[in-house]
Order: sequence, then structure tokens, then C-alpha cells
Amino acid sequence: MTHSAAELADYLEAKLTGDSTALVSGIANPEDAGPEDLIYAEKRQGTRAQQSRALCVLSTAEVPGKTTLAVANPKLAFAKAAAWLSPEERPAAAIHPTAVVAPSAKVAKTATLGAYVVVQDDAVIGDGTVIDPFCFVGNATHIGSKCRLHPHVTVYAGAKLGNGVEVHSGSVIGGDGFGYVFGEGKQWKFPQCGTVAIEDDVEIGCNTAIDRGSLGETRIGRGAKIDNLVQVAHNVQIGEHSIVVSQTGISGSTRLGKRVVVAGQAGFGDHATVEDDAIIGGQAGILPGKVIRAGQVVWGTPARPLQKFKEQHAWFGRLPELARRVKALEDRADK
Amino acid sequence: MTHSAAELADYLEAKLTGDSTALVSGIANPEDAGPEDLIYAEKRQGTRAQQSRALCVLSTAEVPGKTTLAVANPKLAFAKAAAWLSPEERPAAAIHPTAVVAPSAKVAKTATLGAYVVVQDDAVIGDGTVIDPFCFVGNATHIGSKCRLHPHVTVYAGAKLGNGVEVHSGSVIGGDGFGYVFGEGKQWKFPQCGTVAIEDDVEIGCNTAIDRGSLGETRIGRGAKIDNLVQVAHNVQIGEHSIVVSQTGISGSTRLGKRVVVAGQAGFGDHATVEDDAIIGGQAGILPGKVIRAGQVVWGTPARPLQKFKEQHAWFGRLPELARRVKALEDRADK
Amino acid sequence: MTHSAAELADYLEAKLTGDSTALVSGIANPEDAGPEDLIYAEKRQGTRAQQSRALCVLSTAEVPGKTTLAVANPKLAFAKAAAWLSPEERPAAAIHPTAVVAPSAKVAKTATLGAYVVVQDDAVIGDGTVIDPFCFVGNATHIGSKCRLHPHVTVYAGAKLGNGVEVHSGSVIGGDGFGYVFGEGKQWKFPQCGTVAIEDDVEIGCNTAIDRGSLGETRIGRGAKIDNLVQVAHNVQIGEHSIVVSQTGISGSTRLGKRVVVAGQAGFGDHATVEDDAIIGGQAGILPGKVIRAGQVVWGTPARPLQKFKEQHAWFGRLPELARRVKALEDRADK
Repeated sequence: MTHSAAELADYLEAKLTGDSTALVSGIANPEDAGPEDLIYAEKRQGTRAQQSRALCVLSTAEVPGKTTLAVANPKLAFAKAAAWLSPEERPAAAIHPTAVVAPSAKVAKTATLGAYVVVQDDAVIGDGTVIDPFCFVGNATHIGSKCRLHPHVTVYAGAKLGNGVEVHSGSVIGGDGFGYVFGEGKQWKFPQCGTVAIEDDVEIGCNTAIDRGSLGETRIGRGAKIDNLVQVAHNVQIGEHSIVVSQTGISGSTRLGKRVVVAGQAGFGDHATVEDDAIIGGQAGILPGKVIRAGQVVWGTPARPLQKFKEQHAWFGRLPELARRVKALEDRADK
Repeated sequence: MTHSAAELADYLEAKLTGDSTALVSGIANPEDAGPEDLIYAEKRQGTRAQQSRALCVLSTAEVPGKTTLAVANPKLAFAKAAAWLSPEERPAAAIHPTAVVAPSAKVAKTATLGAYVVVQDDAVIGDGTVIDPFCFVGNATHIGSKCRLHPHVTVYAGAKLGNGVEVHSGSVIGGDGFGYVFGEGKQWKFPQCGTVAIEDDVEIGCNTAIDRGSLGETRIGRGAKIDNLVQVAHNVQIGEHSIVVSQTGISGSTRLGKRVVVAGQAGFGDHATVEDDAIIGGQAGILPGKVIRAGQVVWGTPARPLQKFKEQHAWFGRLPELARRVKALEDRADK
Repeated sequence: MTHSAAELADYLEAKLTGDSTALVSGIANPEDAGPEDLIYAEKRQGTRAQQSRALCVLSTAEVPGKTTLAVANPKLAFAKAAAWLSPEERPAAAIHPTAVVAPSAKVAKTATLGAYVVVQDDAVIGDGTVIDPFCFVGNATHIGSKCRLHPHVTVYAGAKLGNGVEVHSGSVIGGDGFGYVFGEGKQWKFPQCGTVAIEDDVEIGCNTAIDRGSLGETRIGRGAKIDNLVQVAHNVQIGEHSIVVSQTGISGSTRLGKRVVVAGQAGFGDHATVEDDAIIGGQAGILPGKVIRAGQVVWGTPARPLQKFKEQHAWFGRLPELARRVKALEDRADK
């Protein structure tokens, strides 16, 4: 869709300087942009913006020679503008003739099922939801409206997805949790008959696994975003608008609060608690049962407050020097 | 299935006190239980159990007001009771009309093939095995009896699965191992033409990858349990009843003994050896060629005995203090 | 294919001693080899080779009692010989009747599409390429010639694969990158409308995820090899002939040079740079923005030169002793 700079400024509540009739029809990097592409510039990126062919720039302050839409947070405004300029393309509502849909399933008339989709007994699929090829939607699952399941998503029986949920290829929702009790010479499987609930507007990346609860429920809170190859174990609770980066693993019954940010490859033991707005560094390891307080930033294994980790780690780097100094003191004392 | 407390006590060899005619028809958490749900209580969980609506409790000692089934290990008894009360539901034996089965494949009459299953030449599928939609069963694979392959499992040509094997969605059995030799300006692929054998009663989680041997064999021993997103490289051997938690990676030719427990995100270099009953901590890193002795508990990267790691790590946390003490000694010596 | 030792020596430019008419028809481990299997022996593996039933041995020096093909790098010669003796078997060119191919897609006549393959609008598939069952090939993708996509590969719209690319089961090429901007109480998705390019002769393992660029491009260079369960984020660049071992995660916009080797479970922050021929140790963590110089070998989190890490880590192991020595100095000073 093409809009004028004035319309865009209006939508973003931005302060416009320059040519209010300049047209914007897409988004791009400054380096790749054509005249009608919107770009954005963070502080100190003014030169990149100036050298771009783009006519319109989102920035905190006026960029010389450009039509500037000044906002407090250019990256946020850019994300909003992108969604406005390029609404997601969705295939027309239709059920592909190869889809295998159980007679007892309830599929909304405005939903789309791609080639080779399997929908099993009593599943419910809401308005405007798009299910891409090779998705498996198990018995008695509920999938809300305006969801998108990309190719090769598996939803085990009984899982519940809210509205506006997007799941990328290869992810598995509702697999059995991993729990065994050793006895009489073998591993007995602990029952894995709980449920999994994915709330509205959650996005889940590729090849991620989110297990059902063992007896209770696994729950991903509204607006949370989960990256590729993440492991979410049975009975985990992730709070609203939290972010979990790739290859993180969260063990059973651990709870993350709201707006928590977890960097890549972090690992959580079971029954840990992370309070609201905490930040967990990459590769950090949170011990079982540990509590991370609201707003804390932690790093390392076992994880500790970032400042403490940095101070300790600086001395780790100076250990050979420290050891030499101890040796020197010993030599002096021995004299 | 509904049983009386007396029948259940008999099956579990538990000591019954209270109402032997109380009925049990399911399992639950104490908080979610109805009267006919069986619950279990570990030590110090007596209050949770007492407050439950459940009539019957598995516990080590009598719970006041409840029909108690006293056993040495309530969690183990609960797992056994769950399997007894709620046997897994399996679809009726049938081959879905959309399944593509090679004429030379041998599929048992009591097996079930779901929609869009592909079974290639000379594959063998045993009695009572259930293959869910979108599974790929390659040439000359052998899958035993009473196995379950959940949707989207891939079994590469030549892989062998024993009886009672369960594989969850997205896992890949028998992919090529990862081995290259650099020469003449490029990576030459080392041949990956070995085999993979999964023994009886193994369970494999979601999105896990188990590679075939390069020349020899990859083998997962009887009763071993492997979680989601685990990497098992070429020629790895995992012993009977071992447990490998999510996101662990095991490099080529490494051998794990029997009843080994590996916590999440651990990493093993190639040609390492872990003897029986050893325990590997979360995120631990085992160096190539390393030997972990029977029954040892190790942690850290490079992994070392847990007690040693804890002692060393406590001093890591006190490094800034130690450095100050060295500085103080230097100041005194300089006076 | 069966060849004489003389023919093989000729192909490998090896120095032959022994029976030049000995036949070679396969490859094997020394322990499993039959008379016609070629084996190889590294230094100090002469005994293994001598005890083998194989008649012909690749080695650096003559192995007594065997027909020896002497070469500088026996493992490399073995890999070359394997490819020569056992060329990959490919199914005959055909489009399975269950494949769903958009009319606007261009599929070469010599390509093979297996059962239940979906090829969407304007996709291009080149000569001799084999697409196995359940692969999804999205809109406007380009897949070159002589590629192999194993079962259950997903290629999102717009992705480009060169010639000779092999992708193993469960991998996803071109998923959305992971980027959000928090504002107005929710996470706004940063646009993920870039592209992904996989150059010639790249091999990608099982269940790996390679995201498209957010605005620009993600690129995997010619001949690079990527293992199972690897995460490659938006806008990452991986140089030619680099090796990335299993479960490694590479964050957005990070660049790896040529012939870089990354061991398993390593993690890279965003916007890091790894120059040519560097080696990254297993589980190492590279901080955002960090530069690893050409040829450097690094380990640890945060990663540092291997020798430095080893020296520091040796003192970590001796920390309890160092602390005791400081205490002894304090006691002496207090006297």
C-alpha cells in the first residue's frame, strides 16, 4: 500500500519536516532502499540515512535533505509502519482437497487449510486461521481465530491456542513431558496427561518443542515470543510479553514472570522462578528452585547478578597474575 | 478403568488403611483431584494430600482422613498405577487410504498407518505398531511391534527399531553423521553409510536427531529415555535405562554406560566414555576422550567431580575478596 | 562398483605396493571389513589394519601383508575413494502422483519429487534435484540442480538454494528472524521480509533452522557444512567451507569468515565477526560485537584465546589451594 508522508506521520504521531506529499510504499535498509522505501535511523546513524536513496526517514531528529518523521523511538515506529504498510498476505479461505478433516472437527468457514493438512476428531479451528501444508492438528485441540500455523507444525491432542497465535515450521506443541521414576530395574514413565495453553498473540519459532503438563498445565502467556529450537518442559509458565531467545531450555514447573527477557542458550533447572522484567544472559544457567528477583539482570552458571559476575570474572582473567603475586609474597616471607 | 482401593493395593503391593472399597478411576495432582482420582504424597507433602478431594493417597505413611496405600516409593507406585488405570489409547488397526506403502514393505495386519504415511521398499513394521500421520519410514527399515511413531517422525533407510519404541514428533532417526576432511580447498564428506539401532522400550522426545554410524553403528540401549532436541552423533552408544535430558549433545563415538543420567544442555566431545550410573550435571562439558568413572557425579566445563567443582566455584565467587586480601598482604609487606 | 587396486591408486595418486590386481568394491572399518573393502589407517593404527580381513589399505606407509596405497592423508583419500566407489543412489526422475505442484512452478524434467511434496507458485527446481516426501517448497523459491532435500524439509517463500545443496530432514530454511521492539505494553514484530541464500555444495543437517534476513540477507557460503539442530539467525553470513557443529547458535548479523570451524553448542552474540580460519571451541560464548581474529583458537565464555583460557582455567582448578596459601601468608603476617 502506498501512503503519503503526511498520512504516515499521522498514523505514527510523528513530527513531519520536509515534503509531506512524498510517497512511501515499503520498508528497507538504508543501503537497499529505493525512493519510496521508508527507512529508520537510530542515533549516530544519520550518515547512513543521508546517503540512502530513500526520501523518508524515521528518526529522533531531522535528517538533512530528507523528509523526516521525528519520533521518540524510531525502531518501534518502523516496526509499526511496516505492519501498516505491508499487512501479512494470507491465502484465500479454502480447504485444500487433500486435507483430511475429521467429520467431528469444527473448522470456521473463513479458515484456510493447505494441502495435506490433517485435522482430527473434535478439533476446533477459528475464523481467519491459516493452517499450512503438513500441519497435524490432533484430537480435541482448540485453535483460535487469526492464527497461522506454518508448514509442518504438530499440535498434539488437547492443546489450546488462543487468537493471533503464529507457530513456525517444525515446532511441536503438546508433546509428552519428560519424567521417569527408576524402579525394579527400569524407568517407569511418570504420567504425562496434562494440557498446554498458548495465549493470544504468542509467536513461536521453528523447531521449538513445548510439552504438555504432566498432570497440570503448561502455559505461554499472552504476547510472549519464543524463538527457534527452544525447549519448554512440562508445567512451565511463561508470563505475558516475555521473550525467549533460541536454544534456551526451561525445565519442568519453572515460572517466568511478565516481560522477562531470556537470551540464547540459557538453561533453567526445574521449579525455578523468574520474576517480572528480569533479564537472563546468554548461556546462563539457573539452578533448580532458584528465584531471580524482579528486574534483576543475571549471567553465568550458576547465574548471579551481572555486576557481581563481571567483577568475579575479571579476576578469573587475572588469576595467573594473582597466583604470581601470591608466589612473590611467599618468596618474600621465606627470606 | 475403575478399581477398588483394595485391588489397587494388591496390584501395587501396598499396605492399605482406610476404606478398601473406595473407587479409583484416574490420577491427578492433589489440587485438581476429584474423589476417584488417585494422588501421591512425598514426605512433607501430607498437608497437600489431606486438603485434596481425593479419597485415596499413595504415601509412605498413613495420611489422616484418607484411604492410604502405603509404599516405599509413592512416586514410583503412582507411575505404575497410572499405567494400570489409564492404558494408552491406540487407534484401531488400519491403513489409511492415503498411506503410500511400497509393495515390498511388510506391514503387520495389526499395525496402524495414519493419513499420509510413507513406507518405502522392504520396510518391516511389526504387530500393533502405530505410525501417525506424515511419518516417513525409509527403505529396509525394521520397526518392531507395539511401537508408536508420533506425527512427522523421519526414519532414514536401514534404521532398526526394536519393540515398544516410542518416538515423538519431529525426531529424525538415522540422518547422516557429520564428518568432513578438508583437502584440495574443500570439505570432503567422510562416508556416512553405517546403521542405527534403537533397542526395545526406548522413548525419544520431539525434534531430536539420532545419526546413523559413519561406518559402524549408533546404538541406543534398551529402556533408555531421550528428551526433546537432543543430538546423538554417529557411532554413539547409549547404555540401557540411561536418561538424556533436553538439548544435550553427544559427539561421535562417545559411549554412555547403563543407567547414566545426563541433565539438560550437557555437551560431550567425541570418543568420551561415561561408565555406568554416572550423573552429568546440566550444561556440563565433557572433553573428547575423557573417561567419567562409574557412579561419579560431575559438573562444569571441563567437567570434574561435583564436590571439587563446588569448592572451586565457591572460591570463584570470592575472587574479589581474595584479590583484596592479596593486595592487603602486599601493602603490609611493603611497609 | 568394483575396481582394481591399481585403478584406485591411479585415481587417488597413491603409491601402490603389493597386489595391484586386488579388487576393491566397498569401504569399511578394519574390524568389519571383508576382503574387497577398502580400509584406511592413520599413524599408529597399523595393527588394526594388519588384523583386518581387508586386502587393501590406505596408509602413509606400507602395511605388512596388505596391498598398500600410500598417501599423505589417508583419511582424505578414504573419503575421496568412498565417493568414487559408492556414488549416491538417487531415485529415477519422476514426479509422484501425490505431489502438489503449482502450475506456475518450473520443475526440471530430470528432477524427482517424492510422495506428498508441495511446490508452490513460481518455485524453480533444477536438473537432477531430488525432493523427498513431505518437503515444502514455498512461493518463488529457487532450488538449483543436483540438490537433495530429505523428507520433511521446509523452504519458506523466496529462499534461494544453489547447486549441489543437501538438506537433511526436519530443517527449515527461511523462517522469520526473531526481532521485536517493546512499546505501548506489547512486543511489536520487527519486519522479517529479507531473504536467505544457500550457496553451492552446502550441506545442512537435521532439524536445523536458518532464518531469512530481517531486511537484508542471510547467506551460507559455498561448501559450508552445518550440522544438526543449529540455529542461524537473520542476516548471518557464513563463509565458504566453514564447519558449524551441532547445537551451535549464531545470533543476528554475525559474520563468520572462510574455513572457520565452530565446535558444538557454541553461542554467538549478534554482530560478532569471526575472521577466516578461526576455531571456536565447544560451548564457547562469543559476546555481541566481538571480533575473533583470523586463525585464532578461542574457548570459554566470554571466549578468549585458548592458551589464555587454559592458563586461567588451570588456576581456577587450583583456587582452593591458592586460597589456603593466602590464608597461610595472613597467619604468618599476623604472628
